[in-house]
Amino acid sequence: MKNYHMSPDEFRKQGKQMIDWIADYYENLEKYPVLSQVKPGEIKNQLPVTAPANSESIEQIMADVNSIIMPGITHWQSPNFFAYFPSNSSGPSVLGDLLSSGLGVQGMLWATSPSCTELETRVLDWLAEMLQLPERFKSSSAGGAVIQDTASSAALSAVLAAREKKTNYQTNDTGNLGNLVAYVSSQTHSSLEKAVKIAGIGKNNLRLIEVDENLAMRADLLEAAIQKDLQAGLIPFFVCATVGSTSTNAMDPLTEIGRICQTHQLWMHIDAAMSGTAAICPEHRHFLNGIELADSFSFNPHKWMFTNFDCNCFFVADRSALIKTLSILPEYLKNQATESGAVCDYRDWHIQLGRRFRSLKLWFVIRHYGVNGLRYHIQEHIRLAQQFAGWILSSNDFALAAPAPLNLVCFAHKNGNDFNRKLLETINNSGKMYFTHTIIDGKYILRMCFGQTNTTEEHVRQAWETIQETAKKLT
Amino acid sequence: MKNYHMSPDEFRKQGKQMIDWIADYYENLEKYPVLSQVKPGEIKNQLPVTAPANSESIEQIMADVNSIIMPGITHWQSPNFFAYFPSNSSGPSVLGDLLSSGLGVQGMLWATSPSCTELETRVLDWLAEMLQLPERFKSSSAGGAVIQDTASSAALSAVLAAREKKTNYQTNDTGNLGNLVAYVSSQTHSSLEKAVKIAGIGKNNLRLIEVDENLAMRADLLEAAIQKDLQAGLIPFFVCATVGSTSTNAMDPLTEIGRICQTHQLWMHIDAAMSGTAAICPEHRHFLNGIELADSFSFNPHKWMFTNFDCNCFFVADRSALIKTLSILPEYLKNQATESGAVCDYRDWHIQLGRRFRSLKLWFVIRHYGVNGLRYHIQEHIRLAQQFAGWILSSNDFALAAPAPLNLVCFAHKNGNDFNRKLLETINNSGKMYFTHTIIDGKYILRMCFGQTNTTEEHVRQAWETIQETAKKLT
Repeated sequence: MKNYHMSPDEFRKQGKQMIDWIADYYENLEKYPVLSQVKPGEIKNQLPVTAPANSESIEQIMADVNSIIMPGITHWQSPNFFAYFPSNSSGPSVLGDLLSSGLGVQGMLWATSPSCTELETRVLDWLAEMLQLPERFKSSSAGGAVIQDTASSAALSAVLAAREKKTNYQTNDTGNLGNLVAYVSSQTHSSLEKAVKIAGIGKNNLRLIEVDENLAMRADLLEAAIQKDLQAGLIPFFVCATVGSTSTNAMDPLTEIGRICQTHQLWMHIDAAMSGTAAICPEHRHFLNGIELADSFSFNPHKWMFTNFDCNCFFVADRSALIKTLSILPEYLKNQATESGAVCDYRDWHIQLGRRFRSLKLWFVIRHYGVNGLRYHIQEHIRLAQQFAGWILSSNDFALAAPAPLNLVCFAHKNGNDFNRKLLETINNSGKMYFTHTIIDGKYILRMCFGQTNTTEEHVRQAWETIQETAKKLT
Repeated sequence: MKNYHMSPDEFRKQGKQMIDWIADYYENLEKYPVLSQVKPGEIKNQLPVTAPANSESIEQIMADVNSIIMPGITHWQSPNFFAYFPSNSSGPSVLGDLLSSGLGVQGMLWATSPSCTELETRVLDWLAEMLQLPERFKSSSAGGAVIQDTASSAALSAVLAAREKKTNYQTNDTGNLGNLVAYVSSQTHSSLEKAVKIAGIGKNNLRLIEVDENLAMRADLLEAAIQKDLQAGLIPFFVCATVGSTSTNAMDPLTEIGRICQTHQLWMHIDAAMSGTAAICPEHRHFLNGIELADSFSFNPHKWMFTNFDCNCFFVADRSALIKTLSILPEYLKNQATESGAVCDYRDWHIQLGRRFRSLKLWFVIRHYGVNGLRYHIQEHIRLAQQFAGWILSSNDFALAAPAPLNLVCFAHKNGNDFNRKLLETINNSGKMYFTHTIIDGKYILRMCFGQTNTTEEHVRQAWETIQETAKKLT
């Protein structure tokens, strides 16, 4: 029979060459400009406008990867990547992900690969313990956890479960009636606004609570806003508290917010997308104090726990609320195992039906590093950040722009917004390193986030020199 | 410095062993029971309840993969997998996905890896041409396309864009007001009901239009339902037409539905999750006739185009509607390239913010096979299905239960529901092959879907023998 498939032998050969290519890439990462220097359209214009009619070799494809694709890569795995939040990775994670791709299972139901479901449950219970989460977030309780793609999807799931729980699971039937109100701070991640829009709640029913001098949500203003809405006949239903805001790593007061949520029976979601990982270190666990009052919690091992994108862990205290909200069971998905009630079908825990075997990479990472190894590297990133913050503090030209509780340092040169913007763009366009900005109270602020897998003290020293030298040149 | 990271050399060694493991797996796939035979809890109970404190070797992890994980795998890549819709894969796809994991880029913005955005745009334009989609779905027009994870997410995006376009982009602000109505058929995929619930529209505002004897949506009943809703003061806004329903591969009348949508200015979404792939064969392109009237279209190369999960392609005729619906731009994501307006930031095209470099695997697949190679294998799957349908037709004990236009055959034994259920469960529990069921008009129907990468005529002959022999034994 004619056959265009790649044979196992050919896969063996090409796969090993790809592994070598990736290992070479890791060895040479620092030679690339961190931020891609191409112009819009430059990559696309080098790619044929039509698909090839006939088969091309992997060698041809890899030649194009080298000549066309690579110049258009911004190197998230470079040790000189300090932008946004990191999306760090590691050898064991890539191996686990490769195994997942190779097995090619689709874990929508327990039956469609019991290991996909059960390994996920077990590894998430491991994480609950590593983070010292309350028992209610473990699978042995009424709660549990699931791997989602991103914190955005987790936040949407939380908003939806909160919406349904508040309305006795009626909104799924009736549609939203325009009287539900959600609360976040002015510093909460944009994905919450997006979730509120998607869920049909409407941005007008999202209150942006003001923050204190540390950019943390003011619990007194939250309480006041809830009171005002209640008096107006509206129905408060959801609050998102943030552990480590994207802009500046601000920490909302979980316990105070949690008590308010309990009083008014609001769903409390905690978004700890990057900073949640710090809680595996006992000395940083205090940032999660108050989580015992939360209904849901999410953090991303794909940001700061050496697990390649995508991997968000979403914990809920009442899994039945989530499942009742998102469950759909058409005939063609029914099966003996599901009907027995003895198994968990994760497709009822998120927006999508189909799902990858993502727990493999997380399992590989946790076992390769061990909890102690993970702690060591997280502590090292925090040490580097604190050292950098110290340099800023002792500088005459730069000043800290916000508290730096963990691995993100926000700072600015004294010469004002235009100067800082120019400083950032000049450095990023040099390709030497990549960092990004935010705006606080109208001030253009530089952000350095320390979380790339291979960043060492030497890279941070070099970054600080680059920043100082470039500032001098621009002065 | 102490360091728990895997070195590039160690990655080289372990990666090649993993490639060998996967190649061995491919060579031995037929030796495994297709449907995992484990009991609930059997996998989880073998995994330690606590994460390891200290590092473990990849060899230890792989020993557990072999002894604990593998028995709990349902082998989607087995040539004897005929269940659900396939989730097929191929060597070049796994290589492309491995490259994506190795690069570890997060393509939320053009700037965070221009190649991730521009390769995606180009490859989706290739697909638009391969499927003979209207020009309006190409990036050179007012439309365009994006890779999403699943057809569920694409359907939700379509519902949201439709909701906003119909309400002048006000619902994002006001919340849904309870008067929007969506239309699907009784055979439409459950993800549409889920999307309507998520979007705050409510199931009560979702009309399930009845189907004809071929299980296709009746356009006359759609028109009647719209008229009734209009008379009741409601606002029809969205119709989903299906090309290849999950239950039986039924084909909705696109042109008639499209004309109704145009008359009433409703958003027409086409869900062709599996069967869309058939349209790359000129002789099957007619199933998409009428798509020139659609506002959006989605299909999954991760189902039937040798691209490993996840990979959904979502096309829209008016990208501005989608972007206006889903765009969020906080300060910390602003950058020169975005502000120039010259680039496309795909994070505005879907629910999530972060995104994998998924176009790599699709690019690898299309180039490895070439359009002709892809066509050949799709045609071969359809041939195998039609041959199987012929055997059913000429059988005394079995009868077709629905038309089989492409690669899905629905059939039943004459002995009734209980017998068919027992037949299915007996065969699946034998591990020899895996297929699933649906219910049509109260009848328990067996489904055989022919789309696994390595399924050959020999596997199909063997499957038919197994079905016949088991039926005889159970009679």
